[in-house]
Order: sequence, then C-alpha cells, then structure tokens
Amino acid sequence: MVTVTFKVRFYETDMMGVVHHTNHIRWFEMGRVEYLRQAGVDLNELMAEDILFPIKKVSCEYIESVTFDDELILETTMPSVSRAQMTFNYILRRKRDGALIAKGSTQNVFINMKTGKIIRLKGDKIEKLVAFVEAEKNGI
Amino acid sequence: MVTVTFKVRFYETDMMGVVHHTNHIRWFEMGRVEYLRQAGVDLNELMAEDILFPIKKVSCEYIESVTFDDELILETTMPSVSRAQMTFNYILRRKRDGALIAKGSTQNVFINMKTGKIIRLKGDKIEKLVAFVEAEKNGI
Amino acid sequence: MVTVTFKVRFYETDMMGVVHHTNHIRWFEMGRVEYLRQAGVDLNELMAEDILFPIKKVSCEYIESVTFDDELILETTMPSVSRAQMTFNYILRRKRDGALIAKGSTQNVFINMKTGKIIRLKGDKIEKLVAFVEAEKNGI
Amino acid sequence: MVTVTFKVRFYETDMMGVVHHTNHIRWFEMGRVEYLRQAGVDLNELMAEDILFPIKKVSCEYIESVTFDDELILETTMPSVSRAQMTFNYILRRKRDGALIAKGSTQNVFINMKTGKIIRLKGDKIEKLVAFVEAEKNGI
Repeated sequence: MVTVTFKVRFYETDMMGVVHHTNHIRWFEMGRVEYLRQAGVDLNELMAEDILFPIKKVSCEYIESVTFDDELILETTMPSVSRAQMTFNYILRRKRDGALIAKGSTQNVFINMKTGKIIRLKGDKIEKLVAFVEAEKNGI
Repeated sequence: MVTVTFKVRFYETDMMGVVHHTNHIRWFEMGRVEYLRQAGVDLNELMAEDILFPIKKVSCEYIESVTFDDELILETTMPSVSRAQMTFNYILRRKRDGALIAKGSTQNVFINMKTGKIIRLKGDKIEKLVAFVEAEKNGI
Repeated sequence: MVTVTFKVRFYETDMMGVVHHTNHIRWFEMGRVEYLRQAGVDLNELMAEDILFPIKKVSCEYIESVTFDDELILETTMPSVSRAQMTFNYILRRKRDGALIAKGSTQNVFINMKTGKIIRLKGDKIEKLVAFVEAEKNGI
Repeated sequence: MVTVTFKVRFYETDMMGVVHHTNHIRWFEMGRVEYLRQAGVDLNELMAEDILFPIKKVSCEYIESVTFDDELILETTMPSVSRAQMTFNYILRRKRDGALIAKGSTQNVFINMKTGKIIRLKGDKIEKLVAFVEAEKNGI
C-alpha cells in the first residue's frame, strides 16, 4: 500500500459546499503515479519512451463528503498487473478521524503514445513492478 | 433520451494530447442537469428548497480518446428513479462519425443541503420526473 | 468582435456559491480560439506545424459574480497583432440583462512546440490574421 | 513572505505538454490561504462568520513553463491591506534550480457572503493581519 497525504484546495469545492466528485478521481491519479514511482517506474521515464497508461475504466463510491482544508490520506494498492494492463484500488480517508471518504478503482492499459495502440510492458519495468506488487501482497 | 452537444475545450486536454478522463465525468453532469430540466425539475429550484442530489457512485468506461475541438454528443437516460435516488446512464459519441467514446453511469441520492441527510423527493417534482421517465421508456 | 455564448456549468462553481475566478480565464481561451478560427487560423492546423501560442501575460477584472446556469456572452477583440505576438481583449456579459461580468486581456507569443523558442508567424497565416483584424477595426 | 511547496499534478498539464496557465492562478489561492493562516486568520472561521474575500483583479506574467512532477515554491507577500481590501503578490519558482516561473498579483475585497456587499474587516482579525504584514515589512 502506497499512501499520499494532501489537503483539499479551495477551488476543488463546488456550490454544494463540498468537494466536487470529479476531484476524488483526479486525486486517484496522484496515488497511482506515486505507487509506480515507489515501484521504480517513473512516469516521466515511461513517457520518454512513448509509453502511456490511459484509463480504460474507472469507478468510485462516495461514502462521506469532504470540504476545503480537510486533510486526506489516499491509500493505493494494485490487486493485479500484467504486461498489458494494471488495476489500481484506492481508499480515501480523512486524516483527522480516519473516516472512510471514498473508494475507487481504475483499470489502465499500456499504449504507445504515438500510435495509440495497446502495447506490452517489457524488461526492467514490468519486472520491477511485478516484484513490488508481490512484495506488497506478501507483506514484505 | 436527452442529448447535449458540445465541443471539447482546449484546457480539457492533458499532456497525453487527449482529454483528461475526469472531464467525461464532468460532462455527465451537464447530461443529468439537462435531463432533469427537460423533465421539469430545475436544479436551481431544487437548491432553493435546500435539495441536492450528490453522486453516490460513478463509473465510466473509455472506448476511444477525444481531443481539442472534437464535437461530442452526450445521450442521457434514466433507467431507474425513486423518491430516494436516481440512476443515470450516459453514452458519449463523437458527432462527426458517431463513434462510441465512453459510457458511464451515476447513482445520485436526494439530500437536504443543510442537514446532509438523505431525503425523499415529494409532490410535484417526483411526479413530473417519474412521468418523464415512463414516457421515455414507452417511447412517447 | 467575435462572440461565443455558453452556459455556466455546475462544476465551475465553488463553495462561495459562484463561479471560481479561474474559469473566466479558461473561458477566455474559447474566445481566442474562436477569434482565430473566424480569422481563418485553425489551432489544430497550427499545432500540426508545431506552432503554439502560449500566454505570456493575463489580467482580469471581476465586476459581478455569476453562477450555475447563467448564460454568458464572451466578446473577443484583438487590439494588436504582429508576427511575434498577439494581444486579445475580452468582455464577458450576462446574456439575460447584458450586465458586465468581467473584462480581461491576454498577451500571447508564437513559439515552436518542439524547441519552445519564440518564432515569427509566416505567410498565409499572419496575412489572414492581419487582414481580419484590420477589417474589424474598420468596421467591415 | 509565506512559502508553500508542492508538485505539479498530471491533470494540471494540457496538450502543449506543460501546465495550463490557469493552474498558476489556482495555486496562488493556496498561497493567500496559507498567508492568512499564518497571520492568524483562518478562512473557515471567516466563512463561519459569513465573510468571504473574492478576487476583484488578478494578473499573472509567465516567464518559464513547468510540467508534470516539477516541484514548485510559491512565495506570497501582502504589499497592502486595509479593512476593505487586500493585495497579494506571488512569486512562483522551480525548486530544483530556483528559476523564476511566474509572478502575479491579486486584489481581494471582503464581502458578506449572504448579501454580497463589500464589508470592512473588524476587531481581532484586521489587527492580527495588519500586525503580521507590518512585522513582515520590518523583517521581524
């Protein structure tokens, strides 16, 4: 599990007085970027090799609303990964009381940035990623 | 089915050269606002009575990417509605060729804006909404 | 003067109950894109030739707030243009009553997308643009 | 001078491959919120008393572009403050090399959230704020 901690920004709220629901999904992006970074896979390095990993599916369930200045903890895990795709799960909690705010999931595929075609991740990158995910599952 | 047509704005793209996936979900909002409006339920009127309908669940599947200046058609339907909650389905198509871009769904509940508690929609509003949904299903 | 008409989207509001001030500046982008299009200069065509016109300076004065569902008219003019840079002025009005909502200005330079260096617009493009601006000034 | 350090998020980029220019202005908001907090004026407390401080004017000059994952330092100062309005200046630097990225300014007025009318900040709040600004100017 990889965690990212951050505060809600004022512009992320809407006229309901709480955070607009699309921001949770924007925050998930920070979670998977950080997950991959800790696994040794840097997004800027991938892009330098024309590799991207766009979202194919996203889902999110909202349990409690959050608002400006709330401090949040985003926990990201990767239940499955292959050369062709990754699944990430996200749990969002309020730091102050640990309350469950939202939980979500994304499915990402690897594509070539220039052709837009789905590709398979090779060599070092997929090995590091699989090793990291396995280590996590084994609680290492 | 209620349709909204619009063009992709430049700021909705990201450095992958395509629209960031959270914008599709922002566009869905336009779809349900317009659906309710055509059903005779105005969001500003609801808010004037302290009624809101936040998202409880959202999901989206991305089939093809879109980019700046693409003209899109958003088709919104409401497979189910009750006094306590609404489900909306969304189909996003590119206008030029009708290509399927994304499909999604949201589940919304009615709440009191001040208490944050779930409420049941009453009177005129739920009647108009149910009548509209039924008429749609019957292809009227 | 080139005009664009649009409605405020719900997600553009913030917890003050009105549109967040950065959206006005996002809307200005629609104004200059449309201005250039009407002048015969298409942004996608420019990008296909690796030409971009990033913002060097922006300013905006806010006269009256707007909120969800307000219909707005954005009027864009180009007080000056050269091979190296463009200045745009923007006036934002509420459609219902013509009320002045905001006025702003941007200064854009032409750059090569790959080198990031400032360039001078050549040939057809600058000629069409200058002709359009002159025709506007002369009230043609 | 009050500083805030943060990293550029992926969704803040656009198809030019760099951060969209409206995000700098969104970041400025974090700067003034933190400035006021350090001066002892909490935005949530102000809102609890129906006090808001919307933007009347904003300007920004962009010196160098930034992109995903760049770490930035935002320096906020307050050149002038009165019971009716505040002016903030912002300097944005890249952390890695100290490069000047952008500089901007906002003018904010105090208003009553319910009436929308301009008000004058009273008592404790304006005193703490003036004292903080003076201490800063005197390099205390």
